[in-house]
Parts: sequence; structure tokens; C-alpha cells
Amino acid sequence: YELQVAEGGVEGRVNGLAVMGEDSGIMLPVMAEIAPAQGQGQVIATGQLKEMAEESVQNVSAIIKKFSDVNLSEKDIHIQFVQAGQQGVDGDSASITVATAVISALEDIPVDQTVAMTGSLSVRGDVLPVGGVTHKIEAAAKAGCDTVIIPKANEQDVMIEDEYEEMVDIVPCSNISEVLDVALMGEPKKDSLVDRLKSITGSALDHGAVGSTSGSNPSPQ
Amino acid sequence: YELQVAEGGVEGRVNGLAVMGEDSGIMLPVMAEIAPAQGQGQVIATGQLKEMAEESVQNVSAIIKKFSDVNLSEKDIHIQFVQAGQQGVDGDSASITVATAVISALEDIPVDQTVAMTGSLSVRGDVLPVGGVTHKIEAAAKAGCDTVIIPKANEQDVMIEDEYEEMVDIVPCSNISEVLDVALMGEPKKDSLVDRLKSITGSALDHGAVGSTSGSNPSPQ
Amino acid sequence: YELQVAEGGVEGRVNGLAVMGEDSGIMLPVMAEIAPAQGQGQVIATGQLKEMAEESVQNVSAIIKKFSDVNLSEKDIHIQFVQAGQQGVDGDSASITVATAVISALEDIPVDQTVAMTGSLSVRGDVLPVGGVTHKIEAAAKAGCDTVIIPKANEQDVMIEDEYEEMVDIVPCSNISEVLDVALMGEPKKDSLVDRLKSITGSALDHGAVGSTSGSNPSPQ
Amino acid sequence: YELQVAEGGVEGRVNGLAVMGEDSGIMLPVMAEIAPAQGQGQVIATGQLKEMAEESVQNVSAIIKKFSDVNLSEKDIHIQFVQAGQQGVDGDSASITVATAVISALEDIPVDQTVAMTGSLSVRGDVLPVGGVTHKIEAAAKAGCDTVIIPKANEQDVMIEDEYEEMVDIVPCSNISEVLDVALMGEPKKDSLVDRLKSITGSALDHGAVGSTSGSNPSPQ
Amino acid sequence: YELQVAEGGVEGRVNGLAVMGEDSGIMLPVMAEIAPAQGQGQVIATGQLKEMAEESVQNVSAIIKKFSDVNLSEKDIHIQFVQAGQQGVDGDSASITVATAVISALEDIPVDQTVAMTGSLSVRGDVLPVGGVTHKIEAAAKAGCDTVIIPKANEQDVMIEDEYEEMVDIVPCSNISEVLDVALMGEPKKDSLVDRLKSITGSALDHGAVGSTSGSNPSPQ
Amino acid sequence: YELQVAEGGVEGRVNGLAVMGEDSGIMLPVMAEIAPAQGQGQVIATGQLKEMAEESVQNVSAIIKKFSDVNLSEKDIHIQFVQAGQQGVDGDSASITVATAVISALEDIPVDQTVAMTGSLSVRGDVLPVGGVTHKIEAAAKAGCDTVIIPKANEQDVMIEDEYEEMVDIVPCSNISEVLDVALMGEPKKDSLVDRLKSITGSALDHGAVGSTSGSNPSPQ
Ligand SMILES: [Ca+2]
Ligand SMILES: [Ca+2]
Ligand SMILES: [Ca+2]
Ligand SMILES: [Ca+2]
Ligand SMILES: [Ca+2]
Ligand SMILES: [Ca+2]
Ligand SMILES: [Ca+2]
Ligand SMILES: [Ca+2]
Ligand SMILES: [Ca+2]
Ligand SMILES: [Ca+2]
Ligand SMILES: [Ca+2]
Ligand SMILES: [Ca+2]
Repeated sequence: YELQVAEGGVEGRVNGLAVMGEDSGIMLPVMAEIAPAQGQGQVIATGQLKEMAEESVQNVSAIIKKFSDVNLSEKDIHIQFVQAGQQGVDGDSASITVATAVISALEDIPVDQTVAMTGSLSVRGDVLPVGGVTHKIEAAAKAGCDTVIIPKANEQDVMIEDEYEEMVDIVPCSNISEVLDVALMGEPKKDSLVDRLKSITGSALDHGAVGSTSGSNPSPQ
Repeated sequence: YELQVAEGGVEGRVNGLAVMGEDSGIMLPVMAEIAPAQGQGQVIATGQLKEMAEESVQNVSAIIKKFSDVNLSEKDIHIQFVQAGQQGVDGDSASITVATAVISALEDIPVDQTVAMTGSLSVRGDVLPVGGVTHKIEAAAKAGCDTVIIPKANEQDVMIEDEYEEMVDIVPCSNISEVLDVALMGEPKKDSLVDRLKSITGSALDHGAVGSTSGSNPSPQ
Repeated sequence: YELQVAEGGVEGRVNGLAVMGEDSGIMLPVMAEIAPAQGQGQVIATGQLKEMAEESVQNVSAIIKKFSDVNLSEKDIHIQFVQAGQQGVDGDSASITVATAVISALEDIPVDQTVAMTGSLSVRGDVLPVGGVTHKIEAAAKAGCDTVIIPKANEQDVMIEDEYEEMVDIVPCSNISEVLDVALMGEPKKDSLVDRLKSITGSALDHGAVGSTSGSNPSPQ
Repeated sequence: YELQVAEGGVEGRVNGLAVMGEDSGIMLPVMAEIAPAQGQGQVIATGQLKEMAEESVQNVSAIIKKFSDVNLSEKDIHIQFVQAGQQGVDGDSASITVATAVISALEDIPVDQTVAMTGSLSVRGDVLPVGGVTHKIEAAAKAGCDTVIIPKANEQDVMIEDEYEEMVDIVPCSNISEVLDVALMGEPKKDSLVDRLKSITGSALDHGAVGSTSGSNPSPQ
Repeated sequence: YELQVAEGGVEGRVNGLAVMGEDSGIMLPVMAEIAPAQGQGQVIATGQLKEMAEESVQNVSAIIKKFSDVNLSEKDIHIQFVQAGQQGVDGDSASITVATAVISALEDIPVDQTVAMTGSLSVRGDVLPVGGVTHKIEAAAKAGCDTVIIPKANEQDVMIEDEYEEMVDIVPCSNISEVLDVALMGEPKKDSLVDRLKSITGSALDHGAVGSTSGSNPSPQ
Repeated sequence: YELQVAEGGVEGRVNGLAVMGEDSGIMLPVMAEIAPAQGQGQVIATGQLKEMAEESVQNVSAIIKKFSDVNLSEKDIHIQFVQAGQQGVDGDSASITVATAVISALEDIPVDQTVAMTGSLSVRGDVLPVGGVTHKIEAAAKAGCDTVIIPKANEQDVMIEDEYEEMVDIVPCSNISEVLDVALMGEPKKDSLVDRLKSITGSALDHGAVGSTSGSNPSPQ
């Protein structure tokens, strides 16, 4: 059972995108809420996250902790992959989705539900490339979304079919501040938030990406 | 051995509903109590909860922590699946049951034992769809309950047999505040609680559910 | 090697009852002591407790923490299944035994060693049904005990042989306060303790047990 | 490699006894030291203790914490099974050995190295029966010890060969205070310690041991 | 998908080098960020680090903690192996890469992205030898880097092909202060940092390396 | 790759000795550093230590904590087995090596790198016997060391070949204070340290070692 929302603005809810099996995408929403901590504040993520997904939440938390005005040592940050089901969530491509949901919940700024997104995140705010962007864009289009945010480094990987091309705008982003500029609603408050985020994250990858190779996983020796 | 209660009002006790095997439901009560913490306050859930059930308790705690007037950093919240037995509890469909039991215990407001319920919960208070609603409703009817709360998103899945249809009222809910409005007893106190809960949770899914598809478990890539 | 005590009064020691194999019972005493905590207070239970037994100790602790006048955050509560041996303790039928031993140790009130007991416990003080009551009662009789406390919900399950019937009084209880009324010694102090416990636990199952069915283990979906 | 000491007095060192394989005993010394805690005080036991041995150390700690004048929340209690080797330590028969070593270290009172001992311990100070007493007594005699402390409940199990009978005195004890009366050296200080321990532990098994049966491991149901 | 940066200066980002399979190297960047701790400060490293890689981060932290002016008990140090992928990071040859990234983030001094590096690190600041230096140097050259830092103890292992020899400068280092002197940018600030680091780490291996043998892994007995 | 140092004085670095396979020894250096703790002070040992090696570090910490003037609750003690490799460190024969490295780092007193050592340690400072002393002494000689410290209880096990006999002095020690007297450099400071250590550790094994038998691992019953 899945509930899809592709209209209006909702606080703490973001339409994420995932790949299912070999060649199909799916909307996988993330919800966040900030609550007073029972003990020492912590980040609590549910959806049976595998190790890589757990780590992506830790990377996101680096930016949240730098960004927040609130003293997070007295707050619990709840993150819920709403329809993750029994098999749980793997990979790190929901990083920008999680970051957007948490910042929306922290700042009480609604997220545009016509926007869907996919992208990994560095601890310094860079949006890093992910897999399956084409299938994900098509899934967002089918679900009725109007805009899909993808990593700038994945721009050359987009090969969506014609029927979807007119349905959605594709917005490549290279920094989390650009993501929030697109996804959040409510002008004056949003703009100051985006500016604050820009000044915090800097922009590590400004100086030219020399190349992009896919490969197996290397290990230092 | 199971003890079933389907009459009167009891604090901190709620008639949950579960599916057994392929095609039968069962009443599975949840009890809660609030006690002074020995060290730092924590949520302690028993009934041999599997990962998904543990996580559903964490999601519920987001709402409890926002809702409570009491300083929960000095309280332990005990949650007991009373008849879970050796195999324990899986899934997240008892989320609203747990939330109702804990809020009843925190606020010293009795729960109507003629009510049974099933439903998942988001960290922001939305009641999310679950499986097996038909079998669960029939189990509640057989056990003598008069009212069964189900998620609004499961309304179209109800196909109970005629013999049960007259025995129970089915109440679809989309927010935890609606659940408590039906399940708690004692008017003036309950109403102020429900109002407070409404203002805290907001209503993330107001803007129209676009569709509902069942499917296998997707993972971000 | 087992040491059996069935006479006199001892603080912090209670004759529990267990089932061995298919069809025989055994006395399994529980001892408790309260000590200054080295760090933050905790409950320390030994006897190689399996998950269900560990959880039963957590459920008992809900009542202990509500009941105690002492600040338990500076105390360790030690619980020892004295003759648990290499295979350890499973199940939750020693819950009332553990509760009685700890309260005796906390309050310095002796436990009547002519009493043996079996029963599960809810976090709100209800005595819940267990298995094997007949074998357990016979084991208590053989060991020389005069009184056996069982859950009220197990009353209809008692089918002891004639030779034992005259040896022991069977006392069905539905609340932990009734258990302590029977098991503790020393009148005025005990009575005030039992009254205090009654007011704390309430009585969740007062309103009529609708039925009692045995079954396999259900899980919420 | 093993170092055996069977003469003189040493602080924080006690000659324990263990069974090796089917039918032979061995001396297994325990050493203890008290050090300022780096963080929060804890009990640190080395010798690759299996679960039952770990739990026996926890049971011992109940008595240490009640007994100590020192604030143990700022102290680490180090316990070392000196010659445990690769296979580690199992069982709970070194409980009185551990208790004696720690109390000697805490109080700076030497332990008589001509004494060897075996015995389990309840959280309230009772010496509980163990296995293999005959082989253990013979091992102590072979190692040159003059005195062997065993649990009173094991008195009837002693069947040592004639050649050893004249070499060692066997001292059955039922309370940890009796053990320390035999094992510690240095009269006035020791006596006040033993008195203090007596008043703390009480004597839970005073009222007559009804019987002693060996058996397999029961579990509550 | 991999993003390679080999130009300009970036804070908290260092081009590490790893070996892939038998005979090829790869650039594996490390990013670091310092954030206010939610609870007690900790080092959080992502990239699915295996035990040896986890330990290398702990060794690096010894130097960071001695070096930092900031009170790290209120800071979380985030370390991210950006392109580690599903198989994660093993080995300790990224130690100097991690140290450089963290110190750059702590001090807000950019790292020269034309530099790549490999090297293990002792808790006292010595650069220790690693494997695969030749393949790693070639990978750095292919990726467009101008300078490669290697451990001084690996100097004799370098056997790069002629085509790469002119592309990169190889800089052997024996202390972390030398590494930072090469890798950081911005003269006056960098120099004082390098001096401070020199005085903290000392130089444990000054007194002559007697030999270098490769071998299997020994264990104390 | 291994770096061997057998000359001069270095703080926080000690030449340990290990056995490799059946019949050969190897130098295995240990390095230590003391750093401000990020949270609560702890001992952090790297080199993929197996359980027995972990426990030997805990035993060493008993002496360090008693010895140190510094408040270790605000310090992290880092211990690094520098060339442990992928298979890690097992056994407890590096205990005196670890103790020497940490005390050198704590007190800023250099360790004589012409000295190598092997020996286990009790929590009260006794040097306990280890295996493989002959092979270890030969390895130290081959590596150019002049002095080898071994446990006094291993004196009779030394059977080195003639060619090595003139190369190294063998110094048997029975207490950690004797070890440091040989291994540390810098007279006046060292002497006061050794005296302080003597007064702290006492000498548990003064009263005569009755015998030394090798055997399999016994367990208390
Ligand atoms: Ca909010
Ligand atoms: Ca649309
Ligand atoms: Ca209440
Ligand atoms: Ca009814
Ligand atoms: Ca007491
Ligand atoms: Ca009797
Ligand atoms: Ca002492
Ligand atoms: Ca003798
Ligand atoms: Ca910075
Ligand atoms: Ca270049
Ligand atoms: Ca130092
Ligand atoms: Ca030499």
C-alpha cells in the first residue's frame, strides 16, 4: 500500500525517488519531525535502513547540525521512510530528500509536493551523483510530479522517453542550497534560509569536475 | 492463553488487532505505563518486537515527546504487547494502538474497551494504511467489540462478511487526533487533549491522495 | 544441586515455580538485593535469562519504579535466579516472583517461605495467565510448601491429583497487591505496603474477562 | 604456564579452585585491584569469562557495593582470572573467590595464601553449592594448601582419598562472612570487617535447607 | 560514478589513493566537516569502513585531539569516503588523507587539489609505509594530479613507468607535519599550523630505520 | 612492510616481541599517546586485538589508572600495535610492552630502543610468564637489540643458540617497576617514577612460587 501526494505544500514531507529491481522507479516519501529529546538528542531514522542508508543519514546530519539555530542536543530528529516496507532502504541516493525533510521540519517551511528528488550529499553540502536517474524521473512523472531535482553530475545520464519529457521539468543541482531553493515554499523565509545554507556549506566542487568514471569499489591498502 | 476485554474503560490498555497466518485476525492488546526513570528516561517496549515493530514504537515516540506536558527525560515509558508470546510482534500496524495506550497512561484518561483498532502512524501524526483490515475487523467483531478504527486509506479494502457488518461500526481515521477522539473516554478532558494533538500534528496528507498501489519494496540507489 | 527452603520468613527470597520438560514442575527460587549503584542505577538480573524472561523483568520494573520511595537512580536492583543452571531461564511466568522478591528487599519485609508462586505480570500490575499450573502446584506441594499463588485466569486449568490437594492451599490472584498480601509477613508494615500498591496499580482487568483462548502467536501486519 | 602460591599473605590474591575435564581439579588464582575510574566506575573482569561467570561477577558486585565504604562510582574494580588461558572461565563456582579478592583489595587486608576455596554466592551473601568439590580439594592439597573452604551444602559430597585427608582442613561455610573470617589475615581489622559483612548480608538460608537434589535445568513457562 | 577534482583549493577535501584489485590504482577522495555535536562530541566516519580502516581513523584522532584548539567534546568530526561505494573501505593507507582533511576543516585552510596522497599514520604523527605505491602514483598521474605524497619508508618501492614520471612530483614524507606543509595552501596561516604540529608530534622514527621486511602477521603469545 | 628501530630513545614507543607460526619470533612495536578526550576519557587500542589482547590492555589500565597523576577521565589513552596487519594481535604477552609505552607517553620519558620485551601483567603489577621466550629473544637479537626483558618465571625456559647469546643481555623481571627501571631513559626522573610504581603495585608474588606447570585451560564448575 502506498499513498502518493503530488500537490500542495506539506511541512517535513518530501517525495523521494528510488529504483525498484532492474528498470523501474518509484516514489518513496520521507517524513521528518523534531521533538524534545527524552535524554540526549539523537537522530532516529526508521525504514529498516541498511548500512549505506544509515551512513547517508549521518552525512546529512553534519549539515543539519551546522545549519540549525536550535540547540539540537535537546532535540530528537525523527526521519521516517514512510513506505520502505519489510526490505528496508539501501543506498545513499535519498540524502538530499532527508536533508530537505529535516530542514523543512526544523524551520516550519512547507515543501512543494509537486517536486520529487534524488541525490547523494557530501558532509559539506555538495550534491553527489546517484544511479538510475532516468527510471526515477519517469516514476516522478507517472506519479504526477511537475519537477524533478537530480545531481548536476548526472545530467548526461538522463535519457527519458518523449512521453515524459513534457510532463516534468528536470532541475540539476550541485549544492543542497540549490535543492532547497527549488523545493521549499514561502518566499521571504525561504530566501534567507537558502542564503544561510550557502554560506555554511561553501561549494567544494566549484573548481571543475575533471571526469566521471563508473567502476567497482576500490579500497586503500 | 489470552484474556480478552471488550467492555468498560481502562487506562493505558488498548485492544489492538493483528493478522494470524494467512486469513484470520486476532485481538492483541497493548498496555502502557509511565514510571519514574531509574537513569535517563527511555521507551521500553516488550513483546519480542522485530525490527519493524521496534521502529514503529520509535515513530510513535516522536508524537508522544512533542505532545507530553511531563518532562519525559525523567520518565520511562513502558509499552507491553500483553499476549505476544514466543514469536513476538512484527510489522507497524499497531502504531496507533501504542500511541493511544501511552497517551491514555500519560494523561490518566481511560480507553474505551469496546473499541479495537489497527493503523500505522507517521512521525507527524498521519494514520497510514496497513494490511489485513478485513480479517482484523472480523476478529474484533467476534471478540465482542462495537467499534473498529482503521486507516482512511484502507477504506476501500474492507470486505467483511454480512454476519459481522451489523456487529461493528467501522471508523476510518487519517490523523491520530481522530483516533483518540473515538477511543478515549471522559468528555471535557478528552476534548482538550484532542485539540492539543491536532495543533501539534498538523495534517500532512490533507492535500489529496493521488493513488494507492501495492508493490514490492523499493530501495534508493 | 538445589537448596530448597519451605519454612520461615526470609527477606528478598521467593519460591518461584517452573516447568521442566513435558510434565513435571520444580521450585526455582528468586533472590533480590538493592545496592548503591556504581554508576547510574540499573536492574541486573542473572540466571542466563532468555529474551522473554529479560522482558518480564523490564515489565516488573515498571511497577517497582512507580512503587519505590527510594530514589532508584542511585540504586542497583539485583535479581538472581538462584538455581537456573547452564540452560538459563525462559518465559515470563516468574514475573510475580521477581516483583515480590524485589519489593521485599526494598522494604525489608520478609517473604513467607511456605508460599510458592507462578504468574506473569502486566506493566500496570495485573497478574496474567501462565502455562503448566498443575505441574507447578504439585512441585510446590512435594517441596513442602503450604500455599501456592496462581493467576486468577488460570483457575480453571488446575487439575492436581488428590494426594496433593490436601497438602496445599491454592490462592488465585489477579493483581500484584493480592500476591504480596499473601506472600509477605509482618502485619502493620505489610498492610500499608499492599494499600500503597493497590492505589498505584489500579486494576486494568476488573471489567470482565470475556474469554480465554489458547493459540499460536499472532503478529500485527 | 602456572604460578602457584601457597604460603604467606597477599592483598587482592585468592587461590580459587576449578575442575579440569572429567576428574581432576586445579588451582586457579583470582587477583583484584581497585583503581580510580577513567569515566564512570565499573567492574572489569578478565579471563575470557563465559556468560555464567560474567553473571557470577555481577552477583558478587551486589555485596561489594553494599559493603564498601568507598564511593565506587569513582572507582574501577579490576578482577583477573590470572591463568584462565585461551578457553576462558565458565560457571559460577569462583564467586566467593572473587568476593574475597575484591574485599581484600578494597580494605588492604592480606589473604592467607595457604587457603584455597570454591563456592557460588547469592546476591544476599549466602554461599551456594557447586560441583566437583572432591577433585578441587585434592588439587588444593597437591598444591600445598592447608585449608579448603567449600559450601556447607556440599559437605555430604566430599569423598577425598586418605592420602589427602590429613593434608588439608576442610571448612564448610554458608555465608560470605564466614569465608572471610577464615581467609583474611590480621586480627583486629579483619574482625570488624567480618562483623560489618554479617550485618549487611543477613543470612537468608538460616531457616533450614529442606533438601538437595541434582537435576537438569528448569525454565518458568 | 566518480567525480574527480585535480585543480584549485578546497577546504576539507583531500585526494586519497587506493588500490583496486591486483594491479591498478584509483583516486578516492576524503571529505571532512566539523559540526556542533548533538550530544557528546564524536568522530563519525562513513564509507562502510572495515575494522582496519575504523582503527586508522581512531589513530588519526589521537593527533587531531592533541592538535585542536577547539574543544572537541562539543564538536562532531564528520569524515566521508566520498566514493567508497557498496564494498566500503579497508586498510589504513588513507590515514594521512583523513588527517589532512580534518585539519583543513578544523582550521579553515584549503587543501591543494593538485596533490594526491597515501600513507598510514602512527598515534604520534609518524607516516608509516603502505602497499601499492606504484599503482597509486600512476592513478594520481592519470587523474591529472601534479604531486603525490608517499611515506618515506616506501621510497624504494616506487617503480613507475616513464610516461608518468614527468607528470607527477613524488614527495616522500616521514611526519604528518611534512604532509600538511605540502598539501595545505595559504602561506602564513599554514606555516604556523605546521610548526604547531611539529612540536606536538615529535618525531618517533628519527633515530634510524634499521630495516624493512615484509611478512605475514605475527601475534604475541 | 615493517620498520625496525633498535637505537636511541623515543617517547611512547616500545619494541615488543611476538611469535610467528611455530618457531620464529618477530619484533612488534607498540606506540602510545595521550590526548584530550573528546567525551569521557577512554583507552583506545588499535591493531585488531582479539579478546585476550583486549583484556590484557584492560589489565594494564588498572596500573596506569592507579599510577597516573593526570586526571585520566579527561584523557584518551591511545595504544597502537604498529605493524599488526590484517590478522591482528592475540594473546596477552605484550602487556608489559603496552604498560611501558603508555607510562612513557604519560610521563614524557623516552624508552630505550635497544631494549625489547615480552611479558604478561597482573592487575597488581606482577610480571607473569608467557610462551615462546626463546624465539622472541632470538628475534630481538637479529633486529639488533642489546637487551631483552622476560618474565622471571620464564627464566628456565630460555634455550637460545650460542650465536645469539653474546648479542643480547637477558633481564628477567617479576614486577613492572623492574621493567621500567631497565627500559626508560633519563636518570633522576626515571628513578622517582620507578619508586612511585613500586609503592603502588606491591609485589604479590614475593612469597615464593611453588611451581610452574603447563596445562590446558581449566574452568570453575
Ligand atoms: Ca517544526
Ligand atoms: Ca501535476
Ligand atoms: Ca498515569
Ligand atoms: Ca459488545
Ligand atoms: Ca533491604
Ligand atoms: Ca510445610
Ligand atoms: Ca587496596
Ligand atoms: Ca603447606
Ligand atoms: Ca571549518
Ligand atoms: Ca594537472
Ligand atoms: Ca606525553
Ligand atoms: Ca645494537
